Amino acid sequence: MLEKLNELLEKHFDEMVEIRRYLHQFPEVSFKEFHTATYISDFYNNLGISVTTNVGGNGVVAKIEGALPGKTVALRADFDALPIQDEKEVEYKSKVPGVMHACGHDGHTATLLVLAKCLNMLRDQLSGNVVLIHQHAEEYAPGGAIAMIQDGCLEGVDVIFGTHLWAGVPVGTIQYRVGPVMAAADRFSIKIQGSGGHGAQPHKTKDAIVTGSQLVMNLQQIVSRRVNPVDPAVISVGTFVAENAFNVIADSAQLIGTVRTFNDDVRDQIEKEIDAVAAATCSLNGSTYEYTFDRGYPAVVNHKEETEFLVEIAKQISEVDSVEETAPHMGGEDFAYYLRHVKGTFFFTGAKPEGVEVAYPHHHPKFDINEKSLLVAAKTLGSATVQYQNQSQKSLVQPRQA
Amino acid sequence: MLEKLNELLEKHFDEMVEIRRYLHQFPEVSFKEFHTATYISDFYNNLGISVTTNVGGNGVVAKIEGALPGKTVALRADFDALPIQDEKEVEYKSKVPGVMHACGHDGHTATLLVLAKCLNMLRDQLSGNVVLIHQHAEEYAPGGAIAMIQDGCLEGVDVIFGTHLWAGVPVGTIQYRVGPVMAAADRFSIKIQGSGGHGAQPHKTKDAIVTGSQLVMNLQQIVSRRVNPVDPAVISVGTFVAENAFNVIADSAQLIGTVRTFNDDVRDQIEKEIDAVAAATCSLNGSTYEYTFDRGYPAVVNHKEETEFLVEIAKQISEVDSVEETAPHMGGEDFAYYLRHVKGTFFFTGAKPEGVEVAYPHHHPKFDINEKSLLVAAKTLGSATVQYQNQSQKSLVQPRQA
Amino acid sequence: MLEKLNELLEKHFDEMVEIRRYLHQFPEVSFKEFHTATYISDFYNNLGISVTTNVGGNGVVAKIEGALPGKTVALRADFDALPIQDEKEVEYKSKVPGVMHACGHDGHTATLLVLAKCLNMLRDQLSGNVVLIHQHAEEYAPGGAIAMIQDGCLEGVDVIFGTHLWAGVPVGTIQYRVGPVMAAADRFSIKIQGSGGHGAQPHKTKDAIVTGSQLVMNLQQIVSRRVNPVDPAVISVGTFVAENAFNVIADSAQLIGTVRTFNDDVRDQIEKEIDAVAAATCSLNGSTYEYTFDRGYPAVVNHKEETEFLVEIAKQISEVDSVEETAPHMGGEDFAYYLRHVKGTFFFTGAKPEGVEVAYPHHHPKFDINEKSLLVAAKTLGSATVQYQNQSQKSLVQPRQA
Amino acid sequence: MLEKLNELLEKHFDEMVEIRRYLHQFPEVSFKEFHTATYISDFYNNLGISVTTNVGGNGVVAKIEGALPGKTVALRADFDALPIQDEKEVEYKSKVPGVMHACGHDGHTATLLVLAKCLNMLRDQLSGNVVLIHQHAEEYAPGGAIAMIQDGCLEGVDVIFGTHLWAGVPVGTIQYRVGPVMAAADRFSIKIQGSGGHGAQPHKTKDAIVTGSQLVMNLQQIVSRRVNPVDPAVISVGTFVAENAFNVIADSAQLIGTVRTFNDDVRDQIEKEIDAVAAATCSLNGSTYEYTFDRGYPAVVNHKEETEFLVEIAKQISEVDSVEETAPHMGGEDFAYYLRHVKGTFFFTGAKPEGVEVAYPHHHPKFDINEKSLLVAAKTLGSATVQYQNQSQKSLVQPRQA
Repeated sequence: MLEKLNELLEKHFDEMVEIRRYLHQFPEVSFKEFHTATYISDFYNNLGISVTTNVGGNGVVAKIEGALPGKTVALRADFDALPIQDEKEVEYKSKVPGVMHACGHDGHTATLLVLAKCLNMLRDQLSGNVVLIHQHAEEYAPGGAIAMIQDGCLEGVDVIFGTHLWAGVPVGTIQYRVGPVMAAADRFSIKIQGSGGHGAQPHKTKDAIVTGSQLVMNLQQIVSRRVNPVDPAVISVGTFVAENAFNVIADSAQLIGTVRTFNDDVRDQIEKEIDAVAAATCSLNGSTYEYTFDRGYPAVVNHKEETEFLVEIAKQISEVDSVEETAPHMGGEDFAYYLRHVKGTFFFTGAKPEGVEVAYPHHHPKFDINEKSLLVAAKTLGSATVQYQNQSQKSLVQPRQA
Repeated sequence: MLEKLNELLEKHFDEMVEIRRYLHQFPEVSFKEFHTATYISDFYNNLGISVTTNVGGNGVVAKIEGALPGKTVALRADFDALPIQDEKEVEYKSKVPGVMHACGHDGHTATLLVLAKCLNMLRDQLSGNVVLIHQHAEEYAPGGAIAMIQDGCLEGVDVIFGTHLWAGVPVGTIQYRVGPVMAAADRFSIKIQGSGGHGAQPHKTKDAIVTGSQLVMNLQQIVSRRVNPVDPAVISVGTFVAENAFNVIADSAQLIGTVRTFNDDVRDQIEKEIDAVAAATCSLNGSTYEYTFDRGYPAVVNHKEETEFLVEIAKQISEVDSVEETAPHMGGEDFAYYLRHVKGTFFFTGAKPEGVEVAYPHHHPKFDINEKSLLVAAKTLGSATVQYQNQSQKSLVQPRQA
Repeated sequence: MLEKLNELLEKHFDEMVEIRRYLHQFPEVSFKEFHTATYISDFYNNLGISVTTNVGGNGVVAKIEGALPGKTVALRADFDALPIQDEKEVEYKSKVPGVMHACGHDGHTATLLVLAKCLNMLRDQLSGNVVLIHQHAEEYAPGGAIAMIQDGCLEGVDVIFGTHLWAGVPVGTIQYRVGPVMAAADRFSIKIQGSGGHGAQPHKTKDAIVTGSQLVMNLQQIVSRRVNPVDPAVISVGTFVAENAFNVIADSAQLIGTVRTFNDDVRDQIEKEIDAVAAATCSLNGSTYEYTFDRGYPAVVNHKEETEFLVEIAKQISEVDSVEETAPHMGGEDFAYYLRHVKGTFFFTGAKPEGVEVAYPHHHPKFDINEKSLLVAAKTLGSATVQYQNQSQKSLVQPRQA
Repeated sequence: MLEKLNELLEKHFDEMVEIRRYLHQFPEVSFKEFHTATYISDFYNNLGISVTTNVGGNGVVAKIEGALPGKTVALRADFDALPIQDEKEVEYKSKVPGVMHACGHDGHTATLLVLAKCLNMLRDQLSGNVVLIHQHAEEYAPGGAIAMIQDGCLEGVDVIFGTHLWAGVPVGTIQYRVGPVMAAADRFSIKIQGSGGHGAQPHKTKDAIVTGSQLVMNLQQIVSRRVNPVDPAVISVGTFVAENAFNVIADSAQLIGTVRTFNDDVRDQIEKEIDAVAAATCSLNGSTYEYTFDRGYPAVVNHKEETEFLVEIAKQISEVDSVEETAPHMGGEDFAYYLRHVKGTFFFTGAKPEGVEVAYPHHHPKFDINEKSLLVAAKTLGSATVQYQNQSQKSLVQPRQA
């Protein structure tokens, strides 16, 4: 049956490219993906596949019921675009000014639609159901995943797989990682309130620039001294603003920054440590502060057995010539939320454009992908689905538990 | 003759007030004091006193030649106003929107004009000449003094006296100080050029906010460790700007600040130390910087003998009930330049408005002076002129050298 | 054959205990293990096993030649003790004042000797050779491993296994880790040379305490900003000494500390970064410095396939009830060097004494182990040896790909 | 009479030198000056001058009663030596191993004794009394002055004069200063209590070296930002000790330093600010601290009128060719206490050895003075005494108001 599926996918590769290019021309930003959602549900309706719209917003969830009993496998693709002006010179360039699929979600969607179509053709042989989660709003916190889960998209699901097309990695490479693979990405803001005055009379003031500078330095020790050194963590201040006449001592200063972690405890710890450092530093300077810590997506933490399973699957895909462990990525992904509810794994599918030394990075106005990656992604996700169900009577890692 | 002069001044006090109120209603900002300059020169022309206009810009210099031989005494009054909206409710309120005599220069000018008029009446008894320096543009660097000196206003001058009406000090008080009395006020700017990047990848960047913060901290040591502790010095950073998205590491940061010193060597030292600290801090962080140090007015350094002479004079003025040493002021004054060419002293004449606990500070939209201070200033400057000339054959401080 | 080996080991368990207790009573410190080395070589000589003494110092290497062709497996046990006074109250307490087996190397040695004896009994069935590396001087840099390798102890070896009895972990638990498992542990020293003077005259000095303090703060940024956040790294300053009269500014200051890393590139990077930070900080303060970076053992980096192989082996040992991944240890081990020459893995064998809540830590005067752990270690190492050789024709990870 | 006094002093100059050299050979350290005290009281007894011993310890106070009514003038000389080994090669080298008059107190004493002898000869013409305060223990806090004052040495005294022979200044120069002339010199100690641990595990510790380093940096801001810039202040840390194995994180750290100020309010402020900075810095680092601030002598603050009087006197001494204002000295002197009870002034008498470019500094093992300075000091103190009494009916500063 796996062979059959792969054949079908190869046969429908052109359709994947066609869909991807269509979506590429009509991108919609996060939380505004109305037409894309309709396009997706129409696709399923036309195939007679059961589909639910407006799941947790613009989310669309389709379901293929296998003829045989078995596990329910969910596959997820996100479909929102970015507020970036497309600067590529290609036929399928975005037709919407200032909006662009600059992260590959068009490819994710095309992959999943065509994979669903092919799986549906083999429905009679499927040992279990397949849930197709088309998620809106991945690019913009709080993201679409939370709401879709609350709206029930994971009900009955046993395992979930997702992938990201990755332009920096050659086609034919699959990257995986057990455990934390993408960071929790949070935002913090500290407004320091000192007491301004004349630049010549520091002793009558509480200099907010000195306080802020000291705070920036003191924050360094959280990572260097307070966090367990084996837990990666980053605290970066991206904005420091206190603007006054040259001879005026600053009354207040605004700091804004980001925190990246891979571990919930460390994330909690850092949220508290920043507050403590700000409190002590401001106290030292006779000043006060306002602190906010806005949580973005948590870390994407891949489950061990499902990731190892995916690795074995990937090695068997004929288009895959390398299965590598990736270092953790510091970017965020709301796929994280699915993995807090069900087991699964999130992996990267190489999608580097042909003939380039270095690809334009994701979110770049000239970003593009190699469309051959769509077939790799479809085959990997498809094989994972079918084989997971086939093995569902036994343990996934049976040899290990023997 | 001193008695006669004082009588004349008392008699013409109303005229001082009248002139001051006229000027108050028609203020002109620095380097634009065209009408005020004409008003002053007309005043002298009407009295038949020799006057030169356009001295170093809008400056006006008059000269009274005494009938008897002797020393030449210069008296200086500045006449520019400030770009501040007058918010006082008085009849003589500024008639020029957004411009105001908020520092008392109207009073300085009125004092000097009427004093000149009275001295001119006693010309037959004057043992030497009196040069009346009406200076434009004191409020705005590079100021009018430099150009007026270059244009010759101090030629032949033996000594110079100047005063500032001071709203924070009661009428009847004269404040003096030997040596540095007003600070050198300089401006510096440091543009740090690091290398920006993603907030999650500090190791690929040269974080300009960390570098800037470290620089602010390191600057503290110049005053605390490197400058001779008995030399007052201040380094204040008034602006720290690096504004980026919360998850972006700053590429560059801008620091702007002020330096205050009373001693030319310390001023030179600090100019160099800031550069050295910036160089080492940026080197530490793999970054570069651009540094500018813009010198404002140097310190006003009063000459010892002339200041002690003025103290003795002031004690003899009937309206003066207190002659006090003042702590050094951290503000700047381009009177500093005159004192680098000839001996002299700059003192403060109490001008606190009647019935107020605390006067509005200089440069405040509701600033005003007590006009009684004009007579005190006129008498003190007049006595200093006459007595200096009378003593000109002998040493000023003869008792001391006996 | 595996079954037979396990039976033999069980049968000779008492001998392991006996040997371990003997060695425990006669410990010798690193590089002085003369009697222990003789004890070991005598043991092999008595069994007629080929043995080489004085390998790279006091090292002893024995070799069992299997009757059948196959891979050569090396097993390593270290045998030096520590300069610590034994404070336990047991019969087998150290008889040497101030010297003690406080890290379990006596157990390592007893395990390996008896395992060798049993393997030798099964020599006819062995498909390849077994090299028994008895290493001296693990506790004291530069350690014995380097010299033994230079002296040829790894010649012909295909794979190496080693274990550490671990008192903090219950008997029956085996801990493993793919990749870095023990840190590189280096030492650095920075001697700051400023210019001292009277406490009242900082401007005439280069204050070495201020420079040193600033350096400590600046070092924090290496970990927080310059090292890739996914690479664990620690820089700790353990000594800061500048001792002078209270009213004297320090002429010099001494800093000594440690660096821990798991990655050679990061280790090299930090060695250079500390130098750069010291250079810039001292330059900032007009001071000089002397810097030394003394490398201890590099990180122990376990090979993936061999570690996964060991995991599968361990699961099959009847006494093993838990096979866990361990977090990286920050301590050092010169087993690191073997793994830079041949493939292999280093794992931890639980050895927590019976009936205690928390075991005395390694290097504690009351440290002891649970001797049952010797059997677990012997069986695991023995099974690994035999199975590795048995599988040597096929891929090590074959079971995984079934 | 002044002329007569000067003649007598010239005539007895040899005796001054002789006494000074005698004392130089038999120095005694602070609080142990038993023989010196006896020597002084014997001197007065031999002359029939009233003398009190054991005043506030080893202090000796003599009193010459003038025949005419008038003011009582006190003159003070200190007589303790230092625990320093004399390394000079001169005939009058110290005969006491490890003890030396390395600060000129031998000269002070010789000057005052001979001056007293001469004044006593002119007793019939003296308009008032002269109190001769021979103070013990100036070099060692709490000093002798406090106890002597408590014991009544200033009773009935109207004014006090004191001088210090100063080896860095040429003979013939007198240095004075109105207001603060010598600093308050205090000592502080901060013991930081963190929580130590293994160098590889900073997150389990409260690193006392990092806390201490941060504290040293934060202390810099007290002077640079919190103290009025026109008030000189110094905070120097002379000791930073935390000594551990290189791989151990410090449990505690000891900081010891000095504070110098010229103003009691600033002194109080800094005592509090250090505490506040330590509290906030330790709080930031989860650590605690013990803080002590031990006050040494307060600032020597010369009275204006008495100092100006002394200046006029000094100008009239034939051996004086320069009367200069000195910058404030950062060293301490317990003459400070006398000036908190009665008016007076403390000045410096040039005593630079002949033929040297740069004199050995005070407290140096090769320190010496030019003995000609004794005559200058004696004449200045003598003239001040006589003229002060002569002018006691009129204002002290009358010449100035002529």
